[in-house]
Amino acid sequence: MKPDFEKGNGLLPVIVQEWETGEVLMLAYTNRQAWEKTLENGQAHFYSRSRKSIWHKGGTSGHVQKIREIRIDCDLDTILYMVDQMGGAACHKGYKSCFFTRVEKDGRFLEHAEKVFDPKEVYNK
Amino acid sequence: MKPDFEKGNGLLPVIVQEWETGEVLMLAYTNRQAWEKTLENGQAHFYSRSRKSIWHKGGTSGHVQKIREIRIDCDLDTILYMVDQMGGAACHKGYKSCFFTRVEKDGRFLEHAEKVFDPKEVYNK
Repeated sequence: MKPDFEKGNGLLPVIVQEWETGEVLMLAYTNRQAWEKTLENGQAHFYSRSRKSIWHKGGTSGHVQKIREIRIDCDLDTILYMVDQMGGAACHKGYKSCFFTRVEKDGRFLEHAEKVFDPKEVYNK
Repeated sequence: MKPDFEKGNGLLPVIVQEWETGEVLMLAYTNRQAWEKTLENGQAHFYSRSRKSIWHKGGTSGHVQKIREIRIDCDLDTILYMVDQMGGAACHKGYKSCFFTRVEKDGRFLEHAEKVFDPKEVYNK
Protein backbone atom coordinates (compact mmCIF):
# COMPACT_ATOMS: atom_id res chain seq x y z
CA MET A 1 0.00 0.00 0.00
CA LYS A 2 1.05 3.60 -0.67
CA PRO A 3 -0.29 7.09 -0.01
CA ASP A 4 -2.95 7.99 -2.57
CA PHE A 5 -1.22 10.98 -4.17
CA GLU A 6 -3.63 10.91 -7.13
CA LYS A 7 -6.49 11.84 -4.81
CA GLY A 8 -4.90 15.16 -3.90
CA ASN A 9 -3.68 15.98 -7.42
CA GLY A 10 -0.20 14.95 -6.34
CA LEU A 11 -0.26 16.67 -2.93
CA LEU A 12 -1.46 15.31 0.42
CA PRO A 13 -1.72 17.12 3.77
CA VAL A 14 0.69 16.13 6.53
CA ILE A 15 -0.16 16.81 10.17
CA VAL A 16 2.95 17.26 12.30
CA GLN A 17 2.58 16.35 15.96
CA GLU A 18 5.19 16.53 18.71
CA TRP A 19 6.03 12.99 19.75
CA GLU A 20 6.49 13.65 23.44
CA THR A 21 3.58 15.97 24.23
CA GLY A 22 1.07 15.23 21.46
CA GLU A 23 0.89 18.94 20.61
CA VAL A 24 -0.06 19.59 16.99
CA LEU A 25 2.72 21.75 15.56
CA MET A 26 1.76 22.46 11.96
CA LEU A 27 0.21 21.20 8.76
CA ALA A 28 2.05 21.13 5.45
CA TYR A 29 1.82 19.28 2.15
CA THR A 30 3.85 16.48 0.63
CA ASN A 31 4.22 14.98 -2.82
CA ARG A 32 5.71 11.63 -3.76
CA GLN A 33 9.27 12.98 -3.86
CA ALA A 34 9.10 14.74 -0.46
CA TRP A 35 7.49 11.61 1.01
CA GLU A 36 10.31 9.41 -0.26
CA LYS A 37 12.98 11.82 1.01
CA THR A 38 11.34 11.80 4.45
CA LEU A 39 11.32 8.00 4.57
CA GLU A 40 14.93 7.89 3.37
CA ASN A 41 16.57 10.34 5.76
CA GLY A 42 14.20 10.42 8.74
CA GLN A 43 13.62 14.19 8.73
CA ALA A 44 10.43 15.89 7.56
CA HIS A 45 10.42 17.13 3.97
CA PHE A 46 7.42 18.86 2.44
CA TYR A 47 6.30 20.40 -0.83
CA SER A 48 6.00 24.17 -0.65
CA ARG A 49 2.92 25.25 -2.59
CA SER A 50 4.12 28.87 -2.72
CA ARG A 51 7.71 28.15 -3.77
CA LYS A 52 6.65 25.10 -5.84
CA SER A 53 9.59 23.05 -4.63
CA ILE A 54 10.68 20.44 -2.12
CA TRP A 55 11.27 21.97 1.29
CA HIS A 56 13.51 20.45 3.95
CA LYS A 57 11.81 21.72 7.12
CA GLY A 58 14.41 23.46 9.28
CA GLY A 59 16.98 23.63 6.48
CA THR A 60 17.34 27.40 7.08
CA SER A 61 16.50 27.76 10.77
CA GLY A 62 18.02 24.48 11.98
CA HIS A 63 14.62 23.58 13.38
CA VAL A 64 14.47 20.18 11.69
CA GLN A 65 11.85 17.62 12.60
CA LYS A 66 13.17 14.15 13.39
CA ILE A 67 10.61 11.49 12.59
CA ARG A 68 9.67 9.18 15.46
CA GLU A 69 6.65 7.56 13.87
CA ILE A 70 4.58 7.92 10.71
CA ARG A 71 0.89 7.11 10.43
CA ILE A 72 -1.54 7.33 7.54
CA ASP A 73 -5.31 7.58 7.66
CA CYS A 74 -8.01 5.12 6.55
CA ASP A 75 -8.41 6.81 3.14
CA LEU A 76 -4.62 6.88 2.56
CA ASP A 77 -4.88 10.59 1.80
CA THR A 78 -3.65 12.23 5.01
CA ILE A 79 -0.31 11.60 6.71
CA LEU A 80 0.69 12.13 10.34
CA TYR A 81 4.34 12.71 11.29
CA MET A 82 5.12 12.30 14.99
CA VAL A 83 8.38 14.15 15.52
CA ASP A 84 11.02 15.52 17.80
CA GLN A 85 11.10 19.24 17.02
CA MET A 86 14.65 20.60 17.08
CA GLY A 87 15.00 24.17 18.37
CA GLY A 88 11.73 23.91 20.26
CA ALA A 89 9.66 25.72 17.64
CA ALA A 90 7.98 24.66 14.40
CA CYS A 91 6.41 27.97 13.37
CA HIS A 92 8.40 30.42 11.27
CA LYS A 93 6.81 33.20 13.32
CA GLY A 94 8.73 32.01 16.39
CA TYR A 95 6.01 30.04 18.15
CA LYS A 96 6.33 26.39 19.15
CA SER A 97 3.19 25.53 17.19
CA CYS A 98 1.64 27.27 14.20
CA PHE A 99 -1.68 26.95 16.05
CA PHE A 100 -0.96 29.78 18.47
CA THR A 101 -4.29 31.49 17.74
CA ARG A 102 -7.41 30.43 19.59
CA VAL A 103 -10.85 31.05 18.13
CA GLU A 104 -13.32 32.18 20.78
CA LYS A 105 -16.97 31.13 20.80
CA ASP A 106 -17.99 34.44 19.30
CA GLY A 107 -15.53 33.95 16.42
CA ARG A 108 -12.85 36.35 17.72
CA PHE A 109 -9.21 35.33 17.22
CA LEU A 110 -6.83 35.53 20.19
CA GLU A 111 -3.10 34.76 20.26
CA HIS A 112 -2.56 32.61 23.34
CA ALA A 113 1.06 31.42 23.14
CA GLU A 114 4.46 32.95 23.77
CA LYS A 115 7.23 33.11 21.21
CA VAL A 116 10.11 30.68 21.56
CA PHE A 117 12.44 32.64 19.28
CA ASP A 118 12.63 35.94 17.42
CA PRO A 119 12.29 35.25 13.68
CA LYS A 120 14.62 38.17 12.86
CA GLU A 121 17.41 36.52 14.84
CA VAL A 122 16.97 33.14 13.19
CA TYR A 123 16.38 34.02 9.53
CA ASN A 124 18.59 37.11 9.11
CA LYS A 125 21.82 35.74 10.51
CA MET B 1 -9.79 37.97 11.40
CA LYS B 2 -11.35 35.00 9.64
CA PRO B 3 -10.22 31.70 8.12
CA ASP B 4 -8.82 32.30 4.63
CA PHE B 5 -11.30 30.19 2.65
CA GLU B 6 -10.19 31.78 -0.63
CA LYS B 7 -6.77 30.18 -0.25
CA GLY B 8 -8.20 26.67 -0.39
CA ASN B 9 -10.73 27.40 -3.15
CA GLY B 10 -13.42 27.54 -0.49
CA LEU B 11 -12.23 24.49 1.48
CA LEU B 12 -9.75 24.32 4.36
CA PRO B 13 -8.41 21.24 6.17
CA VAL B 14 -9.49 20.67 9.77
CA ILE B 15 -7.39 18.53 12.09
CA VAL B 16 -9.49 16.88 14.80
CA GLN B 17 -7.68 16.11 18.03
CA GLU B 18 -9.06 14.47 21.17
CA TRP B 19 -9.12 17.10 23.91
CA GLU B 20 -8.22 14.81 26.79
CA THR B 21 -5.44 12.67 25.30
CA GLY B 22 -4.12 14.80 22.42
CA GLU B 23 -4.61 11.88 20.02
CA VAL B 24 -5.16 13.00 16.43
CA LEU B 25 -8.47 11.46 15.38
CA MET B 26 -9.00 12.51 11.76
CA LEU B 27 -8.67 15.22 9.14
CA ALA B 28 -11.61 16.56 7.17
CA TYR B 29 -12.48 19.72 5.23
CA THR B 30 -14.67 22.69 6.01
CA ASN B 31 -16.18 25.54 4.02
CA ARG B 32 -17.60 28.79 5.31
CA GLN B 33 -21.04 27.30 5.97
CA ALA B 34 -19.75 24.24 7.89
CA TRP B 35 -17.42 26.53 9.86
CA GLU B 36 -20.30 28.79 10.88
CA LYS B 37 -22.51 25.83 11.84
CA THR B 38 -19.69 24.47 14.02
CA LEU B 39 -19.27 27.81 15.80
CA GLU B 40 -23.04 28.09 16.26
CA ASN B 41 -23.89 24.71 17.72
CA GLY B 42 -20.59 23.52 19.20
CA GLN B 43 -20.40 20.23 17.31
CA ALA B 44 -18.06 19.54 14.39
CA HIS B 45 -19.53 20.02 10.91
CA PHE B 46 -17.50 19.44 7.77
CA TYR B 47 -17.85 19.62 4.00
CA SER B 48 -17.85 16.21 2.36
CA ARG B 49 -15.84 16.38 -0.84
CA SER B 50 -17.34 13.11 -2.12
CA ARG B 51 -20.98 13.90 -1.30
CA LYS B 52 -20.50 17.62 -2.02
CA SER B 53 -22.56 18.64 0.98
CA ILE B 54 -22.36 19.75 4.60
CA TRP B 55 -21.78 16.83 6.90
CA HIS B 56 -22.67 16.79 10.58
CA LYS B 57 -20.05 14.41 11.95
CA GLY B 58 -21.78 11.66 13.92
CA GLY B 59 -25.21 12.51 12.53
CA THR B 60 -25.71 8.87 11.46
CA SER B 61 -23.56 6.99 13.98
CA GLY B 62 -24.21 9.21 17.01
CA HIS B 63 -20.43 9.71 17.25
CA VAL B 64 -20.61 13.49 17.35
CA GLN B 65 -17.61 15.62 18.24
CA LYS B 66 -18.21 18.22 20.93
CA ILE B 67 -15.90 21.19 20.50
CA ARG B 68 -13.74 22.05 23.50
CA GLU B 69 -11.41 24.48 21.79
CA ILE B 70 -10.72 25.77 18.28
CA ARG B 71 -7.36 26.94 17.02
CA ILE B 72 -6.23 28.26 13.65
CA ASP B 73 -2.74 28.34 12.21
CA CYS B 74 -0.46 31.26 11.40
CA ASP B 75 -1.53 31.32 7.73
CA LEU B 76 -5.24 31.17 8.66
CA ASP B 77 -5.63 28.23 6.29
CA THR B 78 -5.70 25.22 8.63
CA ILE B 79 -8.08 24.72 11.56
CA LEU B 80 -7.68 22.54 14.65
CA TYR B 81 -10.72 21.26 16.53
CA MET B 82 -10.01 19.90 20.01
CA VAL B 83 -13.00 17.73 20.85
CA ASP B 84 -14.69 15.24 23.08
CA GLN B 85 -15.42 12.27 20.81
CA MET B 86 -18.79 10.69 21.60
CA GLY B 87 -18.96 6.91 21.18
CA GLY B 88 -15.20 6.62 21.62
CA ALA B 89 -14.45 6.37 17.91
CA ALA B 90 -14.02 8.90 15.10
CA CYS B 91 -13.27 6.56 12.20
CA HIS B 92 -16.13 5.13 10.14
CA LYS B 93 -14.15 1.89 9.97
CA GLY B 94 -14.64 1.39 13.71
CA TYR B 95 -11.29 2.62 15.01
CA LYS B 96 -10.86 5.39 17.57
CA SER B 97 -8.63 7.33 15.18
CA CYS B 98 -8.50 7.25 11.38
CA PHE B 99 -4.70 7.03 11.79
CA PHE B 100 -4.71 3.34 12.75
CA THR B 101 -2.09 2.46 10.15
CA ARG B 102 1.58 2.87 10.94
CA VAL B 103 4.15 3.29 8.17
CA GLU B 104 7.32 1.32 8.89
CA LYS B 105 10.79 2.59 8.01
CA ASP B 106 10.86 0.39 4.91
CA GLY B 107 7.55 1.90 3.74
CA ARG B 108 5.34 -1.07 4.72
CA PHE B 109 1.89 -0.26 6.14
CA LEU B 110 0.80 -2.00 9.36
CA GLU B 111 -2.53 -1.70 11.17
CA HIS B 112 -1.68 -1.22 14.81
CA ALA B 113 -4.96 -0.40 16.58
CA GLU B 114 -8.02 -2.36 17.68
CA LYS B 115 -11.54 -1.58 16.58
CA VAL B 116 -13.85 0.15 19.05
CA PHE B 117 -17.03 -0.79 17.19
CA ASP B 118 -18.22 -2.92 14.29
CA PRO B 119 -19.26 -0.60 11.44
CA LYS B 120 -21.97 -3.06 10.34
CA GLU B 121 -23.67 -2.74 13.73
CA VAL B 122 -23.57 1.04 13.74
CA TYR B 123 -24.48 1.94 10.16
CA ASN B 124 -26.97 -0.84 9.27
CA LYS B 125 -29.27 -0.55 12.24
